[in-house]
Amino acid sequence: MTWQEAAAEYRATRDANIPKEYLITDLPSNDVLDVKDYPTLPGVLPALDLEITQTLTVTELIEAIKEGKYSAVQVTEAFCRRAVLAHQLTNCLTEVFFGKAISRAKDLDEYFEKTGKTVGPLHYCICSKFAILSVPISLKDQVEVEGTNFTMSYVGWIGKKASHSAVIAELLSSQGAVFYCRTNMSQGLWFGEGYNNLFGRTTNPFNRNVTCGGSSGGEGALVGLRGSLLGVGSDIGGSVRIPAAYQALYGVRGSYARIPYCKASNSSEGQEMVRSVLGPITASIDGLKTFYKAVLDAKPWEHDPWTPRMPWSESAYALADHGNGDKLCFAIMWDDGVAKPCPPYVRALQQAKDALIAAGHEVIDWTPFKSAESGELLMRFFTSDGGYDLKKQLALSGEPQLGGVLDRSKGELSAHELFDLCYIRSGHIKDALDHWNATVSKTSTGRPVDAIIAPAAAAPPQPHDGHMYIGYTGFCNLNDYVSSILPVAHVDPSVDTKINRDDFLSDTDRQVHEQYDPALQAGAPCSLQIIGKKYEEEAIIRMTEIADAALKSVRS
Amino acid sequence: MTWQEAAAEYRATRDANIPKEYLITDLPSNDVLDVKDYPTLPGVLPALDLEITQTLTVTELIEAIKEGKYSAVQVTEAFCRRAVLAHQLTNCLTEVFFGKAISRAKDLDEYFEKTGKTVGPLHYCICSKFAILSVPISLKDQVEVEGTNFTMSYVGWIGKKASHSAVIAELLSSQGAVFYCRTNMSQGLWFGEGYNNLFGRTTNPFNRNVTCGGSSGGEGALVGLRGSLLGVGSDIGGSVRIPAAYQALYGVRGSYARIPYCKASNSSEGQEMVRSVLGPITASIDGLKTFYKAVLDAKPWEHDPWTPRMPWSESAYALADHGNGDKLCFAIMWDDGVAKPCPPYVRALQQAKDALIAAGHEVIDWTPFKSAESGELLMRFFTSDGGYDLKKQLALSGEPQLGGVLDRSKGELSAHELFDLCYIRSGHIKDALDHWNATVSKTSTGRPVDAIIAPAAAAPPQPHDGHMYIGYTGFCNLNDYVSSILPVAHVDPSVDTKINRDDFLSDTDRQVHEQYDPALQAGAPCSLQIIGKKYEEEAIIRMTEIADAALKSVRS
Repeated sequence: MTWQEAAAEYRATRDANIPKEYLITDLPSNDVLDVKDYPTLPGVLPALDLEITQTLTVTELIEAIKEGKYSAVQVTEAFCRRAVLAHQLTNCLTEVFFGKAISRAKDLDEYFEKTGKTVGPLHYCICSKFAILSVPISLKDQVEVEGTNFTMSYVGWIGKKASHSAVIAELLSSQGAVFYCRTNMSQGLWFGEGYNNLFGRTTNPFNRNVTCGGSSGGEGALVGLRGSLLGVGSDIGGSVRIPAAYQALYGVRGSYARIPYCKASNSSEGQEMVRSVLGPITASIDGLKTFYKAVLDAKPWEHDPWTPRMPWSESAYALADHGNGDKLCFAIMWDDGVAKPCPPYVRALQQAKDALIAAGHEVIDWTPFKSAESGELLMRFFTSDGGYDLKKQLALSGEPQLGGVLDRSKGELSAHELFDLCYIRSGHIKDALDHWNATVSKTSTGRPVDAIIAPAAAAPPQPHDGHMYIGYTGFCNLNDYVSSILPVAHVDPSVDTKINRDDFLSDTDRQVHEQYDPALQAGAPCSLQIIGKKYEEEAIIRMTEIADAALKSVRS
Repeated sequence: MTWQEAAAEYRATRDANIPKEYLITDLPSNDVLDVKDYPTLPGVLPALDLEITQTLTVTELIEAIKEGKYSAVQVTEAFCRRAVLAHQLTNCLTEVFFGKAISRAKDLDEYFEKTGKTVGPLHYCICSKFAILSVPISLKDQVEVEGTNFTMSYVGWIGKKASHSAVIAELLSSQGAVFYCRTNMSQGLWFGEGYNNLFGRTTNPFNRNVTCGGSSGGEGALVGLRGSLLGVGSDIGGSVRIPAAYQALYGVRGSYARIPYCKASNSSEGQEMVRSVLGPITASIDGLKTFYKAVLDAKPWEHDPWTPRMPWSESAYALADHGNGDKLCFAIMWDDGVAKPCPPYVRALQQAKDALIAAGHEVIDWTPFKSAESGELLMRFFTSDGGYDLKKQLALSGEPQLGGVLDRSKGELSAHELFDLCYIRSGHIKDALDHWNATVSKTSTGRPVDAIIAPAAAAPPQPHDGHMYIGYTGFCNLNDYVSSILPVAHVDPSVDTKINRDDFLSDTDRQVHEQYDPALQAGAPCSLQIIGKKYEEEAIIRMTEIADAALKSVRS
């Protein structure tokens, strides 16, 4: 069997697991680009499904279940059905296990009937608290759930079954979560789209001409279409943030291992210098705190040896280290010195600045710190095995590489060369920290800037297989900064006109500029990042809420 | 100039920096082995020096300075003089900068006279609190202080001057510390003695026939002779704990980067998989909390990008996660399955068990977890560059290697081989964590065991250049466990008689047994470790205090 045949057969098996009655036959044609609101058209989804999936925030959904307004089965079925629709529109799912999900939901409902309480630990004896996250949660394909398939998007992995669940899945389950599907990603997590040889390409529901971003692209498209309100992605260069940004969602890239990664699959397993992290992608901003608090309340450090013993801190969330949030000072990264953001991002940055000033905060300019060096270091870490792992996985089936990561590799490093690279990186991030601290002389708060505001990318969601520059997200991975995504703007060809430029900062800058096409990219979201120091998850979530409220306030 | 000549010349320069009037001429002859109490003999030290240096704990000394009983200059001079005596007895110093220290002490005194308060930040604008650590602190040779020499014990580094201070030195200084000397270590930190070609060998003040341990051996001997009450060492396999143990001192190996390592020198810079950590070696148990609180109160995460944002936690210290300390359950590692501890350690373990039970705690047996694999993994990380770094440093002068680390190297790994090793390690430490958690079924507390009690080594301090097995300390480095040292016993040839054995667990076990010689090692300390999970510094310090008090209680 060729790899193409094996992949097609595997997809057919996946499709056969989708209940026929969930499938919509009257789909928009392929030249309908914006399918974001298709699920709300009359008759597409049952009324109850729409009520459950369309307008509630994560917290409202949890409350509705706790109050008995909806049963877990009703909620689970509604999201299963909507996930199928999202899949039909964007090709976002890699695996469904709806039977398992509904059976789990039934257990939850029985417990609720018996006790009047929603469930915490039902099958997993990890945590003795009651549920704070009794909702369906979608998982990126790399997050293993015992007894389900897992392929890491490789054709050569077809046939593997998970003999265990990832720690994050165990903990979320202990908090009441129902798992029902897994989602598409870029080949082996290696680039910023949702595209691989096994499952094909996921598209962006705002504009199917452009990418959903990646590598957690399936989560982006699924949550973007509210086929899930809360999904788990991973981020080593922007892979949670880019799909969150490209679908106008919320998301957080937290610091190394704060959210346990243990027993989830990964590429280049053992590359522990720049660690991939797991993080939430969510349809409503309250999902961020809900997710973090649920995971941290389950004491992940007792189950992942890399997770620091740092419980959720209400004091950090109340911005105790940031003047209690009374007057914050943000620094705006108008550009990073490598590639100037395209016009809609400049507009988004200006909107955020105006809104924050109107809300009584201070906003200054950020001076970028060695962005080119940061990007080079990151890429050298990613390719430090000379593509060994990717080549090994591709060889299992003979499938070709996608995304061109092997072409960017400069060969495999030796141990001492890798140590030299780590040493340079440690110097770089120490200097970056000192650079940040030095902003104390530019603020009126007596503190260094509380957060950096930066575009999520230089360019709006790129055309499929287009050029992508990850410098705006990647420096957070190198420095282990916390970074969240704040949806702000959408490409509007009438105002975000292309400007003639010949003052390019770099080749990358030129490529970003040349690719920008407001007509082609129309409607695609342009979101910002709120960036804080290492292990400032609570503070950054709070500051994101503050900035989100400020933006909504000036708009209303 | 040969390397021998260069080293001799450098030592002569160091010696010339020692004020002549500090030198004692009437030293014990070399065949006097126990020189521990020599400084207390009449006429050896001035009466005030003895009063200051001999009996006070770290806290008492700080209080005495705060109350104005002693000036900072008096205290500094007393420790400078006693450090010189310690050096004359054991060869523990690599550099003295007494002039700088006394000048700093004068500044502190002037500030005290003006304000009635001891000083926090005098020259370093890091922390705005008043001093909590206004005492002389000794530093292992790798901890850089701006403007002083630094050699990392390599002959080839002669002539280097530090253009910056290590972050730990900056923070301690901001808390009032006075630096006056640096101390000897093993060549490039590579083995468990205090011996190198540049400074020669440091001996153990309890018995100069045996090693002071290492690699922070100079700190061990200096604090052991109370030429310092509090010193900073480093630990990647036991290098804080072994010298602390071998001199009957207290010490802590905390988790990665909790104490900032940034800008201190190291071997194999950039080897960030098994991180060396800095930690205190202290003459009195109260020094542990004092040190940790002082460093963490200075917010080290603002100055070291690897340090987690974890302030000192009084709640963790009050054992909030351990039933408030009312009834703890300790597990004793009677042996690790690789090498059985020599008789004095078995005696020490039994004493600790009896004392803790008498104090109302529970004590069960620890089942060791894959100790051989743990040791092999650790050694493979240490030698993963194939000795590249060590060879490079030796080549600078032509000096020969010591300690045999190059002979144990199996060649340099490639990046992907290193990743494979990291991946195996991550699996190992996850299994080890699960193994620990599984003890919940064996305790009566409803918790897994609160701490493990293990010997600091299988054998008492070895004869110089003797065999050393670091498995008892090393598994903590692999797992990133917190481990403290608790002094318990000393080799007593009348009770710790050598037992005939032929039931050896391994070659190492046989070597440990064969080397044991209670007559030769008489008087040398045999200390225990109290071991807790990652980032449990506060809890382990408290549990060490509890065990120390329990032992003192049954003895009194």
